[in-house]
Amino acid sequence: MIASTMQDYQLTVSAILRHGSRIYGGSECVTWAGAGARRATYAEIARNAERLAAALTELGVGAGDRVGTFCWNSQEHLEAYFAIPGMGAVLHTLNIRLPADQLAHIIDHGGDRVVLVDDTLVPLLAQVAPGLSAVETYIVIGAGDAGALEASAPAGAKVLRYRELLEAQRTRFAWPELDERTAASMCYTSGTTGDPKGVVYSHRSTYLHALASNAASLCGSTEADRVLTIVPMFHVNAWGFPYGCFLSGATQHMPGPFMTPDMLTRFIATERSTLAAAVPTIWNGILAYGEQHKIDLSSLRMGTSGGSAASRALLEAFDKRYNLRIVQGWGMTETSPLGGMSHPPAEVPHATPEDVEWRLNSGRIAAGVEMRVVGLDDGKPLPWDGITAGEIEVRGPWITGSYHRDRAPEKFHDGWLRTGDIGTIDGRGFFKVTDRVKDLIKSGGEWISSVDLENQLHGHPAVLEAAVVGIPDPRWEERPLACVVLRPGENATAAELAGYLSGKFARWQVPENWTFIAEVPKTTVGKYDKKVLRARYRDGELTVERLN
Amino acid sequence: MIASTMQDYQLTVSAILRHGSRIYGGSECVTWAGAGARRATYAEIARNAERLAAALTELGVGAGDRVGTFCWNSQEHLEAYFAIPGMGAVLHTLNIRLPADQLAHIIDHGGDRVVLVDDTLVPLLAQVAPGLSAVETYIVIGAGDAGALEASAPAGAKVLRYRELLEAQRTRFAWPELDERTAASMCYTSGTTGDPKGVVYSHRSTYLHALASNAASLCGSTEADRVLTIVPMFHVNAWGFPYGCFLSGATQHMPGPFMTPDMLTRFIATERSTLAAAVPTIWNGILAYGEQHKIDLSSLRMGTSGGSAASRALLEAFDKRYNLRIVQGWGMTETSPLGGMSHPPAEVPHATPEDVEWRLNSGRIAAGVEMRVVGLDDGKPLPWDGITAGEIEVRGPWITGSYHRDRAPEKFHDGWLRTGDIGTIDGRGFFKVTDRVKDLIKSGGEWISSVDLENQLHGHPAVLEAAVVGIPDPRWEERPLACVVLRPGENATAAELAGYLSGKFARWQVPENWTFIAEVPKTTVGKYDKKVLRARYRDGELTVERLN
Repeated sequence: MIASTMQDYQLTVSAILRHGSRIYGGSECVTWAGAGARRATYAEIARNAERLAAALTELGVGAGDRVGTFCWNSQEHLEAYFAIPGMGAVLHTLNIRLPADQLAHIIDHGGDRVVLVDDTLVPLLAQVAPGLSAVETYIVIGAGDAGALEASAPAGAKVLRYRELLEAQRTRFAWPELDERTAASMCYTSGTTGDPKGVVYSHRSTYLHALASNAASLCGSTEADRVLTIVPMFHVNAWGFPYGCFLSGATQHMPGPFMTPDMLTRFIATERSTLAAAVPTIWNGILAYGEQHKIDLSSLRMGTSGGSAASRALLEAFDKRYNLRIVQGWGMTETSPLGGMSHPPAEVPHATPEDVEWRLNSGRIAAGVEMRVVGLDDGKPLPWDGITAGEIEVRGPWITGSYHRDRAPEKFHDGWLRTGDIGTIDGRGFFKVTDRVKDLIKSGGEWISSVDLENQLHGHPAVLEAAVVGIPDPRWEERPLACVVLRPGENATAAELAGYLSGKFARWQVPENWTFIAEVPKTTVGKYDKKVLRARYRDGELTVERLN
Repeated sequence: MIASTMQDYQLTVSAILRHGSRIYGGSECVTWAGAGARRATYAEIARNAERLAAALTELGVGAGDRVGTFCWNSQEHLEAYFAIPGMGAVLHTLNIRLPADQLAHIIDHGGDRVVLVDDTLVPLLAQVAPGLSAVETYIVIGAGDAGALEASAPAGAKVLRYRELLEAQRTRFAWPELDERTAASMCYTSGTTGDPKGVVYSHRSTYLHALASNAASLCGSTEADRVLTIVPMFHVNAWGFPYGCFLSGATQHMPGPFMTPDMLTRFIATERSTLAAAVPTIWNGILAYGEQHKIDLSSLRMGTSGGSAASRALLEAFDKRYNLRIVQGWGMTETSPLGGMSHPPAEVPHATPEDVEWRLNSGRIAAGVEMRVVGLDDGKPLPWDGITAGEIEVRGPWITGSYHRDRAPEKFHDGWLRTGDIGTIDGRGFFKVTDRVKDLIKSGGEWISSVDLENQLHGHPAVLEAAVVGIPDPRWEERPLACVVLRPGENATAAELAGYLSGKFARWQVPENWTFIAEVPKTTVGKYDKKVLRARYRDGELTVERLN
C-alpha cells in the first residue's frame, strides 16, 4: 500500500471567509434601504464577523451551541453566516413566515440559546417569545423599537443591540481550527407532510456546495458579478450564494425587507445586478409590475428560479420582453439545496423555442450530486429515458443522510435520500419533476398525477386555480377530487371541465368529484396546501358534486 | 453538541467518471492522428476504463499497487487515468523526456508493477527495461513494433497489447467504494534541485482540484468547450483537465505525439478547440510558425500558459495577431497543480495594455488554495503590498504535505509547503514569481536576483541567452557569474555588458565574473539547468573573465 502525501486541509466556513476577505476584500455586500443602499466591503464583513463571534463568545456561546437568526437578507445576516459557523457554533436560520406554533417548536427543537432578530421583525418574534424558555439572549439588528420583545421574553432573557455589541469589541478574534465535519448551520424543512425536520449542514458540505455552485456549468459567478439574492437567507442558505460569492468575489445584493416588485426592480436598475435568484412567484410579480411600469433589467445576465416549477409563459415572457434567460434550479432543504440547473445542452441556440423547452426541465444533474429514479412500488432503479417516471433519489457530499434528533429511516433508501419528488431523467441527466409522491393518487392500483390534472385545468379559460387531491373511495381505494376556483365573472360546470379533461387523459384518470371554492389554501411559501383541502373534505366543509 | 446530518459521501475518481459518462456520455475524447482524428465518447471511455480495470485485476494488480504510464496524451491514457485510480490502484505518470537513469530510478522508487507504454515510445522505454526487475508486465498501446521491449525486458516480464487485453473483457467491472483519502495517482518532481521526489495525489485532492478548476473564475470549462491539453498528461495530470472535463462535460482534444506547431494548429483549426493549455515554449512555437504560415486560432476563447513565465511579447502578440487572450496559471507538481490564474480584475478592459500588465502576474490565488509570502531569513509572513518579496508558501486540500517515502521536513513550514519560489502578493491576491530561492545569490548578506540580471541581459541586442549563477567568493561568500551566449555575428565584451547593467542595478549587484559559452544547458522541460553550469565552473570547464 501507499499513502497519499496530500495535506490534511479542512474545508471550513472560515476558510471561505479568509478567501473572500483577502482576495476580494473590495467586493461588496450592498443592502437595499428603500431609497439608496448601505454598503460594506468583504474586508469589513470579515471584521464584523470577528466582532460578532467575540461578542457571542462573551455571551457564553460555545462550540456546537445554536444561534438563531430571524432576519431578512442583509449585511448583518451575512456577518452572522460567517461568525456563527466560524466560531464553531451552529447558525440556525428561522423562517419568518412560519405560523407561531411551528416557529416556537423549531426554536425549541433546534435548541437556540441566542436569536438575532431584525428590528422590523421584533413584533413577530415577540409573539412566540413568552414560550421560549431556552433562549437566553436576543440581539436586535437595527435601531427600531424592541419594546415588544423586552415585554414578552421570559424574565432573565436579555435583549441587546447588534451594533452596540460589535462596537464594544476591540480585539481580533482568532477563528478556531475546526474539523470539516463539524456542524455549521441548520434549517428546518417547511413540513408540508408532517412535523418540520431539521437538516444540519457541515462545514464540509457548505464549502463543497459553494465551490460546486461556482462552476461555469452552474451559477458560475465571478468577481464581475453582482448577485441579487431575492430568495431569503432563511430559506436553505439563500441557495448557497452568500458563501459562493465569497469564493468567487461576486458582490452581493441584499434586498432587506423590500421584497415588492417596485423595490426589487429599482434595486436591480440602480445597482446593476447581473444575476438574480428568486422563486416563480417573485418572477411573476416582476413580470406583472413590468406590464404597468417601465423597468430596466438590462444588467441581468441570468435569472435563476427555484422552489417550484416556473411556467413556460414565465420563461417566454422574460426572453421576449427583457432578453433575460431564466434558468431553473432544483433542490430542497435536504440538498443544501443545489441538485441541478436547467442550462440547455451546449448546442441549443439561446432564446429559441427549443431553448425554452430545455429550460422547462427541473435541472440537469449538478457535478457533485448523484441522482436516480426508482419505481414507486419496488424501489428498483428505472431507465434514464426521459419518459419512465418514479421517485427521485439523490446522494452526495451536500445531501442529508438523516435529520436533527430524528434519523427518519423512511426518508432514505440504501444511502440515498428519497426526495418525495416524482420525475424522469433523460439520457443526458436532465430531470423533470412532475409530481410529489404525496400528490399522487392511487386508484385501483394505478397512479394518477394530481399535478398533471391541475396543469391541464389551469389551461381552461374559466379556471383561475385548481388543486386536485385524493379522497378515499370504497371501490378504487382513492379517487381524485378537483377543487376549482373560477375566474371572476367566468362560469364552468363540473361536467364541462370533466369533458375538457377527457380528451387529454384516460377515462379512469378524469375526476368525477368536483368542488368549487373561493381560494386554494396555500403554505407559507406559497404552495398549494393540500393537507388543508383534505382536512376540509374530511370535515365535510366542501360541497362535492359527483358526476356519473 | 450537535452532529451534522450530511451524508458521508466520498470524493473519488470513480464518482468523476460516473458523472462524465452518464451526464455527458456524448462528449468526446478526440485524439489527433496526424491526419484526421480518432474519437471516443465519454460513455465509451468509461466502458474501456472498466475493461482496463478488469484486465489489470486479472494481471494481479490490487489495491495500492502502482501502474506506470509512459504515454503521450491520448484516449488510452485518459482511460488509464480513470481505470487505475478507480480500481484502487495508483496511476504513476512517467515523464517521457527524463534521462534514462532518472526514469529507471523513478519507476523503481515508485514501485511500478505494470507499465503502459505507447508503441512509439517502446524504444525509449526499452533502454531502461533491462534494469527494471519489479515491472512484471508491459502493456503496449497501439499496433507498432514492441520487439525492442520484448528483447530488453528481464525474463519473466510479459509484454501484452492494450487493445487485445480490453477486447478480452466482456463483463462489467464494479468500481470498489474507496475512502477519499486513498492514493489515486503519483507524479515525480523534475528534480532540478536534487533527486526527484514523488507526490502522491489522493482521490479527494483530485476531485477537489477538478471541481475548483471548473469555477468560472478559473478555467471555467463547460459542455460547450473543447479543451486541447498540449501540456502532457505525464506532467502533473495535464493540469487536471482530464478530470475537470469529465465534471464539466467539455470535450477533450489530445494531440498524441503530434506536438509540433504545424500539427497543433491544424488540430485546433480542424476540431475547433475553444481552450488550449500549454507551456510558453509551445506558445512561442505557434507564434513563430504563424509568422510563416496561415493559421486559424479563431475558435479559441482562451489560452492558458504555465510551467514558466510567459513574456509580455508573447501575450501582446497573441492579443494583436489572433485576438487570443493567454492567461497564465501557476502551480507545481506539489500543488496538483492549480495555485492561481492571472485573470485580471473584473474592471479591466480586455486586450488593453493594462490587461496585459495584469496577466503578467503569475496568478491570482485560486479558491481552495491559501498562499503567503514569508521572509527568506526569518520565515515571518510579509505584507501583501505587491512589492515586498519573500518565499511563497501554500496550503490547501490539493497541496502536498510530504513526499513518497520521504517526509522532507525542510520543504515544509508550520504545515505550509515551501514552494521555493520567490515573489510578491498584492492586496487582491495577485502574486508574481520573480525568482527561485535556489537562483538567488547571497552576497555579503544581501540577496541578488539572478533572474533579474538575466532578464536585463536578454534585453541587450547582442545577447541570445544569459544565465547567472552564484559562485563561491572568499570575501562576499557568493558572487554572480554571468554566462552569456552571443547572437550569431554579434559581439559584446564583458565590460560592455557590465556597463549595460550598471544603470539598472546597484553597483554591488552587477556581476564582475563573465563567461561566454556556446549554449546554456537546459533541463528536460526546457529550463536553464544551472546545476550543470555550477558543476562546469567547479570543474574548471569555464573560461571566466574577471572585471575590476
